[in-house]
Amino acid sequence: MINQALNGHHGSKLAVCLASGGMDSCVCLALAASKGRQLAALHISYGQRTQRREQEAFLALAKHYHARHTRIITADYLREFGGSALTDPNIEVPVADLSRKDIPVSYVPFRNANFLAAAVSWAEVLHAREIFIGAVEEDSSGYPDCRESFYRAFNHLIREGTRPETAIAVQTPLIHLNKADIIRTGQQLGAPFHLTWSCYSQNDLACGRCDSCALRLRAFAEAGIKDPLPYR
Amino acid sequence: MINQALNGHHGSKLAVCLASGGMDSCVCLALAASKGRQLAALHISYGQRTQRREQEAFLALAKHYHARHTRIITADYLREFGGSALTDPNIEVPVADLSRKDIPVSYVPFRNANFLAAAVSWAEVLHAREIFIGAVEEDSSGYPDCRESFYRAFNHLIREGTRPETAIAVQTPLIHLNKADIIRTGQQLGAPFHLTWSCYSQNDLACGRCDSCALRLRAFAEAGIKDPLPYR
Repeated sequence: MINQALNGHHGSKLAVCLASGGMDSCVCLALAASKGRQLAALHISYGQRTQRREQEAFLALAKHYHARHTRIITADYLREFGGSALTDPNIEVPVADLSRKDIPVSYVPFRNANFLAAAVSWAEVLHAREIFIGAVEEDSSGYPDCRESFYRAFNHLIREGTRPETAIAVQTPLIHLNKADIIRTGQQLGAPFHLTWSCYSQNDLACGRCDSCALRLRAFAEAGIKDPLPYR
Repeated sequence: MINQALNGHHGSKLAVCLASGGMDSCVCLALAASKGRQLAALHISYGQRTQRREQEAFLALAKHYHARHTRIITADYLREFGGSALTDPNIEVPVADLSRKDIPVSYVPFRNANFLAAAVSWAEVLHAREIFIGAVEEDSSGYPDCRESFYRAFNHLIREGTRPETAIAVQTPLIHLNKADIIRTGQQLGAPFHLTWSCYSQNDLACGRCDSCALRLRAFAEAGIKDPLPYR
């Protein structure tokens, strides 16, 4: 399914790739590169706790994949608005409970819409035809802005809100994969997992306890591969 | 038509109002206030030429309308991306030609999607139920992100990308008004046009020559009202 969607592409080979520096965005970059895209790597800092470490991971990944353009931008207003454990020091990052079905306090309201809007603005200036984002719907934290229906709606919005000659499609090649399959896909493509960072709360040794660490550790265990990152 | 849409509202009376400080956002604030909304006034600086002057106008309008929350945020990445006469000092602000039908170089790619995404993030944290934006479709510069179909698509996106219990609607009460009717509506509501700023290129005396000045001057002339702003 991944191959079908990505092989069907025509026109400019330049693609804006949103990347946090985590394992999903690493595999998303690996997939885009493996399909012959030229990469415009885009990282957005928004005042999250692990901003410094994520930037470091992003820059290492962009270098690894020989991105033609590499850009870090800031959307600090998301921290100013607050309302999430990732941006508000007064809301603790909870210990993971992967059996929960409600939306966790790590949800940053409408974050991915802000990220995609910025990516479209850049893509329209660069004449890029695609935006890659490593969003995962099922096997993740349940954020509403990680669902396929959200990306479908965004693709419609792009058609309505850009120049008539602009044609930009958001690609979500990981949306229906589970986390273990993402690891396996990455391994097949030689993705540099040692360069990534996933932890929501720590900048040096990963905590191993937050949702993001728990999802990552479970995925590596299921895939039967050792996670190269250092944990507390 | 304005009255119908805005009177039908239930729930929280808090509304995020995007405001540049121009005449349209002034009348949009006047309408929201006249319908009993409590205002969370939001201004976004994006490195545009007249940033300082617009902020001054915005703060004066927010004060005039007793906004409960007033916030200026920055999205400087739009200037960093470039591609518009409003943000790139190397692209001259053109002299207005209101007969042109193509999209002018003052178009900032997908700008209003960035603005609305930020407004939704804030609205979700504040539990506000509405976002007001003074977009005008017909009698304006022809920007694709000022069309009603764009706002319909955005309302769909909000439903897909926010918490299930969140219900936020984007209101565009000016979308089908012409500029002279906007002036007349503002005058009926006592809107303080002397506090606004519209010029794309100057911070002290309005240039009178850019698209925005030309649309404004024509509107005041058609409405038979004197524009209180100083022109070069």
